[in-house]
Amino acid sequence: MAMKAQVLYDFTAETGNNELSVQEGEILTITNQNVGGGWVEARNSRGNVGLVPEDYIEVNPGSTQASATQNIGAHSQGYNNSSANTQGVNGNEAWTATTWSNNNTADNCNYTEQEPAGNNGSVYSFDEEWDDDSDDGKSTGGYGGSQTEEGGTMQRGGGHSTMKIALNKFPGFSKTPNPELYLLTKHISKGNDTLPIYAGEVGPVWLYPQVPLDCVVADPKKGTKMYGLKSYIEYQVTSNTTNRPVNHRYKHFDWLYERLVEKFACALPIPCLPDKQVTGRFEEEFIKVRMERLQGWMSRMCRHPVISNSEVFQLFLNYRDEKEWKLGKRKAEKDETVGVKIFSTIDPELPEIDPTQVEQKFETYSQFSRSMDNSVKELLAVGNLHWKRCTGPLQKEYRQIGKAFQNLSSVFNTSGYQRESTLTEALTATGKTYEEIAEMVAAQPKKDLHFLLETNNEYKGLLGCFPDTIGVHKAAIDKVKEADHLVTMNKISQQDKHTMEKNLSTMSYALQAEMNHFHSNRIYDYNRLMQFYLEEQVKFYETIAEKLKKALSQYTTM
Amino acid sequence: MAMKAQVLYDFTAETGNNELSVQEGEILTITNQNVGGGWVEARNSRGNVGLVPEDYIEVNPGSTQASATQNIGAHSQGYNNSSANTQGVNGNEAWTATTWSNNNTADNCNYTEQEPAGNNGSVYSFDEEWDDDSDDGKSTGGYGGSQTEEGGTMQRGGGHSTMKIALNKFPGFSKTPNPELYLLTKHISKGNDTLPIYAGEVGPVWLYPQVPLDCVVADPKKGTKMYGLKSYIEYQVTSNTTNRPVNHRYKHFDWLYERLVEKFACALPIPCLPDKQVTGRFEEEFIKVRMERLQGWMSRMCRHPVISNSEVFQLFLNYRDEKEWKLGKRKAEKDETVGVKIFSTIDPELPEIDPTQVEQKFETYSQFSRSMDNSVKELLAVGNLHWKRCTGPLQKEYRQIGKAFQNLSSVFNTSGYQRESTLTEALTATGKTYEEIAEMVAAQPKKDLHFLLETNNEYKGLLGCFPDTIGVHKAAIDKVKEADHLVTMNKISQQDKHTMEKNLSTMSYALQAEMNHFHSNRIYDYNRLMQFYLEEQVKFYETIAEKLKKALSQYTTM
Repeated sequence: MAMKAQVLYDFTAETGNNELSVQEGEILTITNQNVGGGWVEARNSRGNVGLVPEDYIEVNPGSTQASATQNIGAHSQGYNNSSANTQGVNGNEAWTATTWSNNNTADNCNYTEQEPAGNNGSVYSFDEEWDDDSDDGKSTGGYGGSQTEEGGTMQRGGGHSTMKIALNKFPGFSKTPNPELYLLTKHISKGNDTLPIYAGEVGPVWLYPQVPLDCVVADPKKGTKMYGLKSYIEYQVTSNTTNRPVNHRYKHFDWLYERLVEKFACALPIPCLPDKQVTGRFEEEFIKVRMERLQGWMSRMCRHPVISNSEVFQLFLNYRDEKEWKLGKRKAEKDETVGVKIFSTIDPELPEIDPTQVEQKFETYSQFSRSMDNSVKELLAVGNLHWKRCTGPLQKEYRQIGKAFQNLSSVFNTSGYQRESTLTEALTATGKTYEEIAEMVAAQPKKDLHFLLETNNEYKGLLGCFPDTIGVHKAAIDKVKEADHLVTMNKISQQDKHTMEKNLSTMSYALQAEMNHFHSNRIYDYNRLMQFYLEEQVKFYETIAEKLKKALSQYTTM
Repeated sequence: MAMKAQVLYDFTAETGNNELSVQEGEILTITNQNVGGGWVEARNSRGNVGLVPEDYIEVNPGSTQASATQNIGAHSQGYNNSSANTQGVNGNEAWTATTWSNNNTADNCNYTEQEPAGNNGSVYSFDEEWDDDSDDGKSTGGYGGSQTEEGGTMQRGGGHSTMKIALNKFPGFSKTPNPELYLLTKHISKGNDTLPIYAGEVGPVWLYPQVPLDCVVADPKKGTKMYGLKSYIEYQVTSNTTNRPVNHRYKHFDWLYERLVEKFACALPIPCLPDKQVTGRFEEEFIKVRMERLQGWMSRMCRHPVISNSEVFQLFLNYRDEKEWKLGKRKAEKDETVGVKIFSTIDPELPEIDPTQVEQKFETYSQFSRSMDNSVKELLAVGNLHWKRCTGPLQKEYRQIGKAFQNLSSVFNTSGYQRESTLTEALTATGKTYEEIAEMVAAQPKKDLHFLLETNNEYKGLLGCFPDTIGVHKAAIDKVKEADHLVTMNKISQQDKHTMEKNLSTMSYALQAEMNHFHSNRIYDYNRLMQFYLEEQVKFYETIAEKLKKALSQYTTM
């Protein structure tokens, strides 16, 4: 049956692009959601069919296929480029808006193996799959549900709202994160693996390292294998602790991501890696975009005190040779402290919280992440629209203004009248100035909006992971609420109930520490991005004013 | 049968306005040309029907009704507000873009009495017709072809490219300007009425007065008559020579225009008066727009050395009482030196020009006026598009950007995290700044583009009068070319032929003097308007940069 979607924002079609103009509130029928590039094909009530940006619509919850269509614009891989290496922010001249807007909306974070549908640009997909090139001779499984080795692990991509879909698709997978496994655990692991939580100024906080970890992803190199039949890109990753570069292919990042999800996603939202596929006209562009986004993702992981300190992450950054890498990989894949078990390693040295308070805190976080998710999406939609206008109609219009002034100047030159030259020269200069402004207008989004959208896109991805992480907590709260009943039924002891409450308190501390980490990063990131955006905007308007002043000076004052 | 039109410029429809997106080169079928407000209804090849701006299309010359559809966007009343009184330039806050764009394209200069069709705004049409209120008890005829009193007069509105249509429409009118009447005239009138032409620095020039004439049109007052059943607006017109205000209603301006066309249009292009009907939501707006445009028209007439010095113009500006006005009116209406006879009063004190040279000069002028007409129309089309974008999608987009930042700030405020306030306050301020920018963007066209478009619109109207004035010259050249043949046929004497050549030379001097007047005014006007436009643009961009700088300063530097 047809799926319906509601239009969130007005969208005016560009002529000749098969687009469909839609208005806020309008109900559309999705005719093809696999268009790609951030677009869906839809039909309006008048029967007109055309492309509409995914971000501009919301799938109607009453729709018959609502669960399946949550894929549309509901989440995205998140990452940022707000690393210490600011090269990515300023050195992006080669990019096109298309590249950006394609990637901000079309994400494959759920890995449900949809056919890559018709895309405007060519799609580069280097050999980054878990193919026969498995480094240690052990298959780690495909995208399916074969990862059933460890108890309580979340499926790959399971840190996201599409987890349920993936479960339906792969019925062999059955072990969903179940907080019960942990709630009844009495033993708290002590030692190196312990994750302490302290009372910080802002509330419960993770233990932060003295020197923050960071790394640089750089120097992409193309390699080949199988006698040149297959090619891949290798990136150099250099951490600030060792200053020694290690090489990693995309598939290694992907492996790391999978390990982090398995191990931490019940407690920490792990944002998806950047898209496997990046649309772009040039291979260089593709590599550049991916590298920038991998850098952003790695920087965010480095900034997280729990992740950055984990054995698997340290291995990824600092392995000394192939042997250490392979042994480390094998060890990480056999790690049993995964899924909800991660809470057993968390040790809040703080007084136990009452379950009622836990629930209140939970509600606050839950609501905040939902609101922020909406707000971020709104900003992305508006920003994309503005980008499109700057590089489309606005650029064209300023060019036309420039041309019109120059044409008038040319006509004036044919008058045969003796006193033309000052005016015609000034008019020509004015026309050229507006042509320059046209190019400035079109180039500006890459200079300022790009970073704003990239960061917000990263947050969109991150916020898309919250529901599942928070969902584990919600399930725990519900279990604890049932505890009284279970005690009455003699299913658990009074002691068990106390254990559950204590463990719920630990989970709540973990969530608080994580939220405080998120807030502190968010304030840093948004402060930084807004300043950067405004600085660039000021420069932009000042430059235009300067150019126009210069053009003005060419006219004679009368 | 259906009329066809070709699209000159891309036009993107605004959603919800019944508009039709069209692309350059596309062929449309006009389904309703009486829509008004500068729009026509058209159907594209796919059968979609919607509104398209008149200025964006050109009626296909191969169309069956091509002659009738030349009305569409082919000419306009012209006038300017570039008078010494600059009030009109800066004091127009109350105006809307709609007002402007309606008037720049929908002109009724041909007075073919089309039904005023559906208009978005209400139409104010004060009692300005030649109704029963004729001041001197003598009917001067309606809009039809009843003005057959004087030999060789051009029909009202005949100074424009639609003259032929008007002739077809009013078959009673037969006396078209025929240069033969003048070419064989031997007597050159001397005395007060003589119009001398001198050799100026730039070539032949009219005699310019020592002190340029100018006037101020101000202080519109509403009056009523017939016991309040009819109302009219009276304007105060004060010339700089007498400093004594005289009162005139629109119909008086109209009477003056008619006299000037009768008397001078064979030698001088007389631009139409501003539209009879001005669309606007408010009566005040209507009066303000009309007054500004009457001011522009009067200033241009004052600047013309021949017109400003004419008895009828002096009467209009300087009459001392009702009696003088009525007597002067009657005299002017009985003036016999009208039509091509005006050339009999022109006395170039310069050597006779060879007919070959006359033709060359004629070709230059003819081509220049055509090219400039095209260039001015291009600028108008681009300017209108830009205006529409500024007050439409751009304003909306900056508002949305502003709202998105403010919404994000509101969400951040709900985090419960302690260190929000600096960021949220700065974000709110940024959002408000973009909302202010939205209003600035929408208000800007009134500040700068308005004057640019008004002046170009005036030139469009003026250039629309050139073909008919130049046409009289072309007819004279053709007559003189026939002269040899006529001599052979004994239809005219050799002496007659010499008279014709001498008189053609006089006509050519008149055209040269007029073109030099036009060029000098054009250079003045465009120099002035470009400076004004650029000054306002610089202010605009500088103000935006300042506002953004202020918003930027609210963020904490980290």
